[in-house]
Amino acid sequence: MSSLTHLNARGEARMVDVGAKPVQARRAAAEARLVCAAATAKAIREADLPKGDVLAAARIAGIQAAKRTADLIPLCHPLPLNHVFVDIEVGETAVTVRCEVATSARTGVEMEALTGASVAALTLYDMAKAVDKAMRIDGIRVLEKHKG
Amino acid sequence: MSSLTHLNARGEARMVDVGAKPVQARRAAAEARLVCAAATAKAIREADLPKGDVLAAARIAGIQAAKRTADLIPLCHPLPLNHVFVDIEVGETAVTVRCEVATSARTGVEMEALTGASVAALTLYDMAKAVDKAMRIDGIRVLEKHKG
Amino acid sequence: MSSLTHLNARGEARMVDVGAKPVQARRAAAEARLVCAAATAKAIREADLPKGDVLAAARIAGIQAAKRTADLIPLCHPLPLNHVFVDIEVGETAVTVRCEVATSARTGVEMEALTGASVAALTLYDMAKAVDKAMRIDGIRVLEKHKG
Amino acid sequence: MSSLTHLNARGEARMVDVGAKPVQARRAAAEARLVCAAATAKAIREADLPKGDVLAAARIAGIQAAKRTADLIPLCHPLPLNHVFVDIEVGETAVTVRCEVATSARTGVEMEALTGASVAALTLYDMAKAVDKAMRIDGIRVLEKHKG
Amino acid sequence: MSSLTHLNARGEARMVDVGAKPVQARRAAAEARLVCAAATAKAIREADLPKGDVLAAARIAGIQAAKRTADLIPLCHPLPLNHVFVDIEVGETAVTVRCEVATSARTGVEMEALTGASVAALTLYDMAKAVDKAMRIDGIRVLEKHKG
Amino acid sequence: MSSLTHLNARGEARMVDVGAKPVQARRAAAEARLVCAAATAKAIREADLPKGDVLAAARIAGIQAAKRTADLIPLCHPLPLNHVFVDIEVGETAVTVRCEVATSARTGVEMEALTGASVAALTLYDMAKAVDKAMRIDGIRVLEKHKG
Repeated sequence: MSSLTHLNARGEARMVDVGAKPVQARRAAAEARLVCAAATAKAIREADLPKGDVLAAARIAGIQAAKRTADLIPLCHPLPLNHVFVDIEVGETAVTVRCEVATSARTGVEMEALTGASVAALTLYDMAKAVDKAMRIDGIRVLEKHKG
Repeated sequence: MSSLTHLNARGEARMVDVGAKPVQARRAAAEARLVCAAATAKAIREADLPKGDVLAAARIAGIQAAKRTADLIPLCHPLPLNHVFVDIEVGETAVTVRCEVATSARTGVEMEALTGASVAALTLYDMAKAVDKAMRIDGIRVLEKHKG
Repeated sequence: MSSLTHLNARGEARMVDVGAKPVQARRAAAEARLVCAAATAKAIREADLPKGDVLAAARIAGIQAAKRTADLIPLCHPLPLNHVFVDIEVGETAVTVRCEVATSARTGVEMEALTGASVAALTLYDMAKAVDKAMRIDGIRVLEKHKG
Repeated sequence: MSSLTHLNARGEARMVDVGAKPVQARRAAAEARLVCAAATAKAIREADLPKGDVLAAARIAGIQAAKRTADLIPLCHPLPLNHVFVDIEVGETAVTVRCEVATSARTGVEMEALTGASVAALTLYDMAKAVDKAMRIDGIRVLEKHKG
Repeated sequence: MSSLTHLNARGEARMVDVGAKPVQARRAAAEARLVCAAATAKAIREADLPKGDVLAAARIAGIQAAKRTADLIPLCHPLPLNHVFVDIEVGETAVTVRCEVATSARTGVEMEALTGASVAALTLYDMAKAVDKAMRIDGIRVLEKHKG
Repeated sequence: MSSLTHLNARGEARMVDVGAKPVQARRAAAEARLVCAAATAKAIREADLPKGDVLAAARIAGIQAAKRTADLIPLCHPLPLNHVFVDIEVGETAVTVRCEVATSARTGVEMEALTGASVAALTLYDMAKAVDKAMRIDGIRVLEKHKG
């Protein structure tokens, strides 16, 4: 039998039964980093000056994606979310996205935080791809996870 | 004025007008790598033996996500897709996801390939997160892009 | 700092944290009015006689849209809904849509009621647009909002 | 006045108000049967050997569809789901899909179970349609339903 | 190697590449039958008199589902649809749903027709389930399929 | 027989068959106006200074909604979109949203423009509702529509 909780004894995928778990306050934060040329980071920083649409578009896309996690990740549970926030920091040769999610539910929200950070980074990639063909997204990981 | 094509002269986000571009055969391939413990890679490899649901779930999630790219990435154009394929290779301490997408359209499908690879990797992360708290997703990048 | 609750101190969009708010019974009702030619209102009234599909289609579209509010309005919280009802009244030169929504949640449902009423009105517009080029939708507003 | 609970006194569709019903543990199981040629059942059984993608794709599609029930069935309530499982048995001339769903909510999940079983069967139909033009899906029904 | 076209040589699921197929006019029609008690069929027939919402809700749900087929069936191609129509006939102890779909695309629309008919039947099931616990959906099948 | 094109001879809703219409370049622009207190318009104008997230969130929500029109309006055809742009002007006691959409398809995009403008206005309403209880959305109408 597999050690992977999302498989049953026969190795078949299933959504884990969380019915016996208590409804608790749960939070998670995750990060994703768009690694790009210095000129690209500069373009994103400057483009953001007049209207702010570049980073705002990524923040909005990340928030929307966090809400849609159960629709994207097959074995994730649909959860009500109490809070989603996407923070973006433009560095010299990378843009770092941090996504925080909170819920009161029977299971955690690390996948929501990871999905929000990933889609926000993909949105930045989309907006910059015409000026930089060599970008990549790295370091998608959970930063913290709490409950109770 | 910004060098970012997804902004107009005032720095406002918009979906670029591709109406003047020809409908052409376009392909793209992208990659994402789930970096994990050797024991996790082993669990994924073995879990895949009885039923194959682990890698199949990730492939299906990646294909579905590629089709939903325009719904996730705000400034992407909705496109008909001719082909989507997700290939997954389980290494010693990493699982590599490769997503290929093809269309006949006015714009390319690199975002579809990147989104498919990212969501397939996130799906693997979800299934393995109970056994490995230190995974990360790295190297999300475009491998190739063709047209005509 | 902005008085707009959906922005943080830096003016960045975020989904407000409702985790500290109590789960309560909450209701809201909203209205939208399709202003049209008398002949159009007459066509809608009569078309509705044989099968009722015109108003039924708008009611169903409004109910579905109310359920999808968090997917459409970026900073809305996904909520379980206990009740959605769309009532439509065909007047002489206008069709009035009223949408009622109820939930047991940490935040209200006025956006769900407004979204349901708006999409029901847009659905009527779509069905009548071939016979009336001068319609408009007016008076989208909250009629009532209760909690506890 | 109609005996159909989803209509009000005037015969208009509405989402039934479940606000007064208690949040309870609720489970349902439903079934769908893909009736096909023996050669098709054999192809599905064998195709499933190398990678398991055929049955896994149907299981994943069924789980995803169960989560999306309120988005597909207009008068269904959006519910958090605690558990979804799709079991598939390949017989001689039929493939039987069984979908189990559990929630803690104000209303039951039989529609979620029926939708999950139906979409899993449709997914098998899609994968086999090139080799068998005479398939049909039969016997979509609720097997059991419990609460409390 | 499998005879199932949706698997590659290694038995992995993939969306078949239709890039080499011509864009052609394609039509398909499919059927689904809700088998119920005579009293249920009568209730549906009568409930349909005042407002028509029962059959209209099912027609709308079927049309919406046909448009969402590629989102529900993992290996289906997203297609533009030229036409969708759902016809419902209430018999003595069954309600028959027929869904017709037309497109101009590189692949057929039988899955769209089957999905539309299935979801329309599930919608009728949902509206009648409080008065009839013994319904089932039978005979989901393709009635005709044309191209060119 | 009804003059409403979305009904067949029996008064049943259907998606009009556009298969015989030519694929043509088509454009449409629509408007929606959020009528609010002068203090609210001022808050939106100022909130937009630091980061621009208020108007950017509305623009992104409008663009996303335009792409999702066929999923919201039951009888709309799913269309590929070549271009979507949302322009917002903050006046003294109103915020005016203008949405432009372009496609190359068999049918027009006025519903996409109306839906984009409406959802952008609803998004502004959502962000300002805590500071202004008396807002309404007025004047949702088509500004122009072209083809060829």
